[in-house]
Amino acid sequence: MAARLDGEIDFVAGALSSTPEKSLQSGRDLDLPEARNYPTWRAMLEGERALPESDRIDFVSIVTPNHTHFEIAKAFAEAGFHVVCDKPLAISIEQAQELARIASDRKIVFGVTYNYSGSPMIKQARAMVQDGELGKIRKVLVEYHQGWLAERIEATGQKQASWRSDPNLSGGGAIVDIGSHAEQLVRYVTGLEIESLSANVNTFVEGREVDDDINVFLRFEGGAKGVLIASQVCVGQRNDLTLRLWGTKAGLEWRQEQPNELIIKSNDGPEQLYSRGEGYLSKSASDVSRIPPGHPEGFIEGFANVYRSIASAIRSGDSNPIHHDYPDVTDGLKGVQFINAVLESGHNDGAWTRLS
Amino acid sequence: MAARLDGEIDFVAGALSSTPEKSLQSGRDLDLPEARNYPTWRAMLEGERALPESDRIDFVSIVTPNHTHFEIAKAFAEAGFHVVCDKPLAISIEQAQELARIASDRKIVFGVTYNYSGSPMIKQARAMVQDGELGKIRKVLVEYHQGWLAERIEATGQKQASWRSDPNLSGGGAIVDIGSHAEQLVRYVTGLEIESLSANVNTFVEGREVDDDINVFLRFEGGAKGVLIASQVCVGQRNDLTLRLWGTKAGLEWRQEQPNELIIKSNDGPEQLYSRGEGYLSKSASDVSRIPPGHPEGFIEGFANVYRSIASAIRSGDSNPIHHDYPDVTDGLKGVQFINAVLESGHNDGAWTRLS
Amino acid sequence: MAARLDGEIDFVAGALSSTPEKSLQSGRDLDLPEARNYPTWRAMLEGERALPESDRIDFVSIVTPNHTHFEIAKAFAEAGFHVVCDKPLAISIEQAQELARIASDRKIVFGVTYNYSGSPMIKQARAMVQDGELGKIRKVLVEYHQGWLAERIEATGQKQASWRSDPNLSGGGAIVDIGSHAEQLVRYVTGLEIESLSANVNTFVEGREVDDDINVFLRFEGGAKGVLIASQVCVGQRNDLTLRLWGTKAGLEWRQEQPNELIIKSNDGPEQLYSRGEGYLSKSASDVSRIPPGHPEGFIEGFANVYRSIASAIRSGDSNPIHHDYPDVTDGLKGVQFINAVLESGHNDGAWTRLS
Amino acid sequence: MAARLDGEIDFVAGALSSTPEKSLQSGRDLDLPEARNYPTWRAMLEGERALPESDRIDFVSIVTPNHTHFEIAKAFAEAGFHVVCDKPLAISIEQAQELARIASDRKIVFGVTYNYSGSPMIKQARAMVQDGELGKIRKVLVEYHQGWLAERIEATGQKQASWRSDPNLSGGGAIVDIGSHAEQLVRYVTGLEIESLSANVNTFVEGREVDDDINVFLRFEGGAKGVLIASQVCVGQRNDLTLRLWGTKAGLEWRQEQPNELIIKSNDGPEQLYSRGEGYLSKSASDVSRIPPGHPEGFIEGFANVYRSIASAIRSGDSNPIHHDYPDVTDGLKGVQFINAVLESGHNDGAWTRLS
Repeated sequence: MAARLDGEIDFVAGALSSTPEKSLQSGRDLDLPEARNYPTWRAMLEGERALPESDRIDFVSIVTPNHTHFEIAKAFAEAGFHVVCDKPLAISIEQAQELARIASDRKIVFGVTYNYSGSPMIKQARAMVQDGELGKIRKVLVEYHQGWLAERIEATGQKQASWRSDPNLSGGGAIVDIGSHAEQLVRYVTGLEIESLSANVNTFVEGREVDDDINVFLRFEGGAKGVLIASQVCVGQRNDLTLRLWGTKAGLEWRQEQPNELIIKSNDGPEQLYSRGEGYLSKSASDVSRIPPGHPEGFIEGFANVYRSIASAIRSGDSNPIHHDYPDVTDGLKGVQFINAVLESGHNDGAWTRLS
Repeated sequence: MAARLDGEIDFVAGALSSTPEKSLQSGRDLDLPEARNYPTWRAMLEGERALPESDRIDFVSIVTPNHTHFEIAKAFAEAGFHVVCDKPLAISIEQAQELARIASDRKIVFGVTYNYSGSPMIKQARAMVQDGELGKIRKVLVEYHQGWLAERIEATGQKQASWRSDPNLSGGGAIVDIGSHAEQLVRYVTGLEIESLSANVNTFVEGREVDDDINVFLRFEGGAKGVLIASQVCVGQRNDLTLRLWGTKAGLEWRQEQPNELIIKSNDGPEQLYSRGEGYLSKSASDVSRIPPGHPEGFIEGFANVYRSIASAIRSGDSNPIHHDYPDVTDGLKGVQFINAVLESGHNDGAWTRLS
Repeated sequence: MAARLDGEIDFVAGALSSTPEKSLQSGRDLDLPEARNYPTWRAMLEGERALPESDRIDFVSIVTPNHTHFEIAKAFAEAGFHVVCDKPLAISIEQAQELARIASDRKIVFGVTYNYSGSPMIKQARAMVQDGELGKIRKVLVEYHQGWLAERIEATGQKQASWRSDPNLSGGGAIVDIGSHAEQLVRYVTGLEIESLSANVNTFVEGREVDDDINVFLRFEGGAKGVLIASQVCVGQRNDLTLRLWGTKAGLEWRQEQPNELIIKSNDGPEQLYSRGEGYLSKSASDVSRIPPGHPEGFIEGFANVYRSIASAIRSGDSNPIHHDYPDVTDGLKGVQFINAVLESGHNDGAWTRLS
Repeated sequence: MAARLDGEIDFVAGALSSTPEKSLQSGRDLDLPEARNYPTWRAMLEGERALPESDRIDFVSIVTPNHTHFEIAKAFAEAGFHVVCDKPLAISIEQAQELARIASDRKIVFGVTYNYSGSPMIKQARAMVQDGELGKIRKVLVEYHQGWLAERIEATGQKQASWRSDPNLSGGGAIVDIGSHAEQLVRYVTGLEIESLSANVNTFVEGREVDDDINVFLRFEGGAKGVLIASQVCVGQRNDLTLRLWGTKAGLEWRQEQPNELIIKSNDGPEQLYSRGEGYLSKSASDVSRIPPGHPEGFIEGFANVYRSIASAIRSGDSNPIHHDYPDVTDGLKGVQFINAVLESGHNDGAWTRLS
């Protein structure tokens, strides 16, 4: 829905499930042309390569369970297709590094769907930090609370919960699923790199095989400090991703559940509530806004913005993510490094651990 | 964007602007096939009628200035096309009645895009009223505040402001543009019909030819009372449509700018905040929800729900609006009656005026 | 509690209930000295007059049912005592005029406890209007919703409900009890005088002898328009007094239930949230703030500010309410005129009625 | 102001500043009787002891800089006076233990003014946890953000900042000043004891001699985990103390800046907003509520509740803090243990440190 929102991207081919039968059925349900409704991703890769170049898909979008990202992305990237991959980019740092290398060698566009960074008011936040309106950043708080895994629903066969709670398929729990979103959001808005971290990794639900609650102290290059919290056992929380920053001059607050607003605070004057769509916003925020202020945009539009930036990069033939403002394979790699550092620190009772 | 959101509706033909040249250019910009990119709506009507029935458009969507709605809608409806028309349905009550008659005679689906009634939490509100959870409704407050017409921007050539502020093109100002949305929202949620009203109709901006601020007392059949306020000179307000109801058992509050929430209040217990997407909601609210709770939906999704209901009616061959839950030509007619009663009462210093 | 908050006012004498026995008992419960614990207000007046001037009470505070305000206030005022009286000042306009005359003749301080105008952020709002920061005021919305009278609790013997619902004791229902607070708040903040009004006066609860819901259109001198709504049948509302104003330059919003905040809106920049206690506020707001920002003040402090201003006037020997910023007998008179005009318009089906 | 609010406590004697001259002057400004307006706390202790027992002060309230708490409290407690002392109770654990011992030996009431635990909705929160409405507590987040020390205002002579930023007078910075409030609030509401902690202790402002930002991981007895954050460099934050808890059944949220509200969340139904003063609240919350719902109470009332509980304990002759629900010398001791553990862990790069 997000990819198609702007009418720039069509859905023309796919391998849509984990078994050939289900894949073909899903394709039919979604009106895929029979010839490009593939039983497996390997068949799809072969089939598309066999087409004249101008008839092939422009990019593949990988939305499979985490443990398969690497293999699929590698195959399509090596074949020269542009790739859009869900986070986490891969399970191991080595895998992620390999994908980054291939993307660079093949000069493809390789996007990673850190969708929250597509939100207009996040673009505004980033612009204000870049313009120095917050001063030097001192403190970062990022939280991501959900409640849907407060009980062991993976044991009941709930599909999403099942694979996400299997460490072999997911690579981890809350840290992978939501913690890595929080990490990328911080890096995107602040431009700061995490130097080291100390993590407290918990599993509250008995019998669960992955973490369901993490708390991380962050040290950034340049001296800023942060706390990142992600939990999936916070009953009653839906998708409560919140970013707060304080610099020497001003503070900033954004809540994913009210994405059209951005709050700016200082010691010198009233709190300011910025609203999406208004004329006083940065160009970067205005460019990704679709409808007038007061007409709320939501999750889908933010996600669509990531796709739109990637489409723009593909069309331009310029894969530099900075020129088109999309999260790319390097962001994906840093995400995998972050996840691994958190799990390592957690296993070492919170020892300070460098990202590498 | 809203019509295409669910992939059920394609954009296949159009007459897209007020002059043939601009129309054709717009169609090319939007990749309309040349053969169905028409210079005028009359050409479009002729062209589509000339096609074999199975190749024709399923419905026409009329999003032109208000004074043209009647003529276009009448022509397509008489030709047997299903129609989707922006509000107000027409300028005069007679025109609206004629469209209602034609729609009934031709057994077509005739939707009117009162888009706010497509919002999931508005469906929830309606369901709760119908289920008696509020008791008997006593008091209704509906407000719609905007600030964008606080100055005479129509004099600067601003396109939207220009035609909306020309009484010959629009049929009225705030009452038509936003007041009629508020009226339909109240009727949709409460199921109550307005019996009579007393209106205070103001024009604050010097030189403006239409009203820019209205305040209306409402008497409903069955004894409920209400206040409807719509203004476009409330500086700093964006699209602040708010509905509050109080019955004998509970009260209800919905704000368009936070559309994923619905507040229910009673004298007996804590205030309750209902959230879109949750399992405890009515079937009607759940059916029009696309993504999980906490992942905000917005204006586009609500609008898309109106289109989806209309598409469902068209596909089913059953034009009964109640079966498919869409605002139809009768709602459009009542809207025109409301607008006319407000303007009449306003001219008569607020005299109580019956709707007819 | 409010009067004593700043340690400037002591409670030294009283006649505390409607019968001599209950009065004396209440006085004992509150540790009043036996000699000044009076059985009736007449005994109190006599007793205090008999004391040497320097030993007498400085002022009397009248917090009795409405129908007794006039008689008691008149007696104390004529005897030269300063008076603090609850609103409404009196039942009839003639009574209120007489009290205003006596206060003027005797040069006494005569305060009326419109307590909400004592709130710091209301002082800030008034200062901003006076300084022209909102431009010329166009539109005023003031609402006061309560739910405690949604059922006929006066029939159950609830004490507050009983006398307030008896027209002979109260002079009216929602209009008197809360509507008059709303009216004074508007006048205090905007400085605008109501010229005429059209009122819709309702009684929703069967068997009730006074109004429980009023809706009023306001025309102000100078061209501003307004809507005032007060209801006591809004189930789930506690004490929801809200003031919104829009001028040519900015809008303003204050909610009594969040009294430490004031929102300022414009078309040109972000919404601004002003907070009590901050250094950027007006002198008038800062002067009545007691504790640092972020340490919430509430209802009692606002009420105490009215007492403090009155105490300051009494000490200074200068009864000019403008010098000491307290609601006085003239405000009380205007309140009675407003109440009477609303009830009159209501009886005449909403006919526009001038205040006089 | 808080102590006097209910008329149960009079201010009858004092030593009110750090030098005899200033002390005497302050006493005169506050209308203290000359005979009990003392130049020093030692003179006050002597003077009060010399009075007949029935004429003495009932208790002493110690609101001096932190490093003097121990000496003064010890002297008054040993002389058998009841004591109310600001937090922190003392600088060292040994001092705090000695005060606890003396209080126990002398059977005096020894209150510590953790004022936020006096807030009605905090009592409600505690009652709901005790009644099992949240299930078993898993996760605790408590934050306390202020911005007033974002620059080195202690260097400008600002009085509050000066002594609080001098480690010899204060014993620490943010951890002492606000972190210890957060710690007590968690213990009070949850009933959980902190077992060990890992702290990140920062000083952001150059030249500052104490911490101005702390982040602490908490492990509670019984398995709950928590994060406590306190910072005084968060520009634009006023007094942003927030407590969030999640148990197996429900979550809870309270914000000091909106103290009349308590939010309860679950996975099964709508979010619930509890309001102070309502009939559905716990007895403990109702008992400390003064005015009707919707009439906001604030900081002073919460503080007054601590004084009222202490006054009740003193009058009853029963110093058991549980019977009268006030924070006592044991809470003060735990606070000092917490402060010392945080500073120790901080010096050891976040090593997990047990409280003792």
